[in-house]
Amino acid sequence: MLAERGALLYEILRTVRPLVLNSVRVVEKDLAADGLTVGMRAVLEVLAELGPATVPAIGERLDLARQGIQRHVNDLAHLGLVEARANPAHRRSVLIGLTAAGTARFARIRDDELGRLDRMAAGCTTDEIATAVKVLRSLGRDVRRRAGGDQ
Amino acid sequence: MLAERGALLYEILRTVRPLVLNSVRVVEKDLAADGLTVGMRAVLEVLAELGPATVPAIGERLDLARQGIQRHVNDLAHLGLVEARANPAHRRSVLIGLTAAGTARFARIRDDELGRLDRMAAGCTTDEIATAVKVLRSLGRDVRRRAGGDQ
Repeated sequence: MLAERGALLYEILRTVRPLVLNSVRVVEKDLAADGLTVGMRAVLEVLAELGPATVPAIGERLDLARQGIQRHVNDLAHLGLVEARANPAHRRSVLIGLTAAGTARFARIRDDELGRLDRMAAGCTTDEIATAVKVLRSLGRDVRRRAGGDQ
Repeated sequence: MLAERGALLYEILRTVRPLVLNSVRVVEKDLAADGLTVGMRAVLEVLAELGPATVPAIGERLDLARQGIQRHVNDLAHLGLVEARANPAHRRSVLIGLTAAGTARFARIRDDELGRLDRMAAGCTTDEIATAVKVLRSLGRDVRRRAGGDQ
């Protein structure tokens, strides 16, 4: 029983790697028409959810280095989708926020994505998908702890 | 209901990205003592499962470019864990197979990993984990089709 458990959790880890690679390919393909990259899209998403945030805070949320985030922010600012704002808490670290155009763009991208996702995993019920989310969150917490913890 | 479904599938895609990153970090940490990398480990695993295979066949299985696979194979051969064998089907493309040392090494690495995995996601039942595997496989198939298909 225990062996089966470990083997199933292992199967999850094997399945998610190609899923991540392929979903990045799909998102890249869909974003190309907008002149956006997957990294830029991830930054838009964090700002849509958190509201205005500093570059280091965005990096922490995405588990990515600050330098990469800064590059995405610069590219998004160039397209008029984000803008720098004064940070009331720290004069030297500005807040990055979505512009109205950025808010609208991300909402449209997300609607398109959800519409396409709705039609996937057709053989699975909503309950089964919800269970998968629960398991992935629990496993994700434990793996994250072990990745950062006992170095 | 449909909206919920898409949102849950989306949540899966968001959860798996950090899970992959962190599980790679964990595996890297555990493999470092053996002088192995995550890529080398992945090649050992394919050979343990498929038996002897050509470099392109290993690459296809891992969704990775042939050049990277060749490098891992060279590094593994240097450690005496894999060896080239004549390919009865194609004289010019050799088969790569595990040596006895490679077989033993991968079995030990896998036992260690499964033992650690057994203790993860403690709040989830074996049935729930099996459901997650089912959902991930189904979603993985659909995403893979879309990644490769309508280019």
